[in-house]
Amino acid sequence: MTKSPPAKCNVVTINYIHCQAHYRQRFEELFATRAHAIDRVPGFIEMHVLRPKDMESDYLIVSFWENEAAFQSWTTSPEFIEGHKRGFEDIRQAKERGEEPPMTSDFKIYEVIAR
Amino acid sequence: MTKSPPAKCNVVTINYIHCQAHYRQRFEELFATRAHAIDRVPGFIEMHVLRPKDMESDYLIVSFWENEAAFQSWTTSPEFIEGHKRGFEDIRQAKERGEEPPMTSDFKIYEVIAR
Repeated sequence: MTKSPPAKCNVVTINYIHCQAHYRQRFEELFATRAHAIDRVPGFIEMHVLRPKDMESDYLIVSFWENEAAFQSWTTSPEFIEGHKRGFEDIRQAKERGEEPPMTSDFKIYEVIAR
Repeated sequence: MTKSPPAKCNVVTINYIHCQAHYRQRFEELFATRAHAIDRVPGFIEMHVLRPKDMESDYLIVSFWENEAAFQSWTTSPEFIEGHKRGFEDIRQAKERGEEPPMTSDFKIYEVIAR
């Protein structure tokens, strides 16, 4: 698969991850050892995981895509399930214990309109 | 000035711009014709201006820096004033007319912890 350079990418998605304080270390570990399943998805270019300096704001997962269709098709792909397996399992276990989810997420889609 | 590729950049700042609906077109025009003053700032790598697809969320100005000191020093530089001249003037005029500011902004600083 040919990867386009970021300069040609006009679609960016950001997953805003609200992490409970006790889960931050685990969250960072999940991404430090991520499955890289998304890297195989057609139309995916690259991603950055951003830690907020204030340690209170959301973490951001910023992903660059060749087009929005590529992003949408990833969200229903086996790679999506594979890439989120450990995080989903953490959430499931917290629910089983009657606890709040250790993280919640909210996707937003953007278009690059200037550089 | 040598520009590092984004892959070497570990500091990202995001300016969350809340735009009033009537100001969105003008805001986009300001960035489409931006002064490029920031491009001359040592340690600046690149920026993306992101328009939210839902047209309700904030616009994001995502900037990549060689280090946080470069970002901090830009915020008090002549380039900062030059780059924001027209936007600041729009805000000043709205104030003079007794109106709410057409846009408000909130900077957040992030560290890239994974790719």
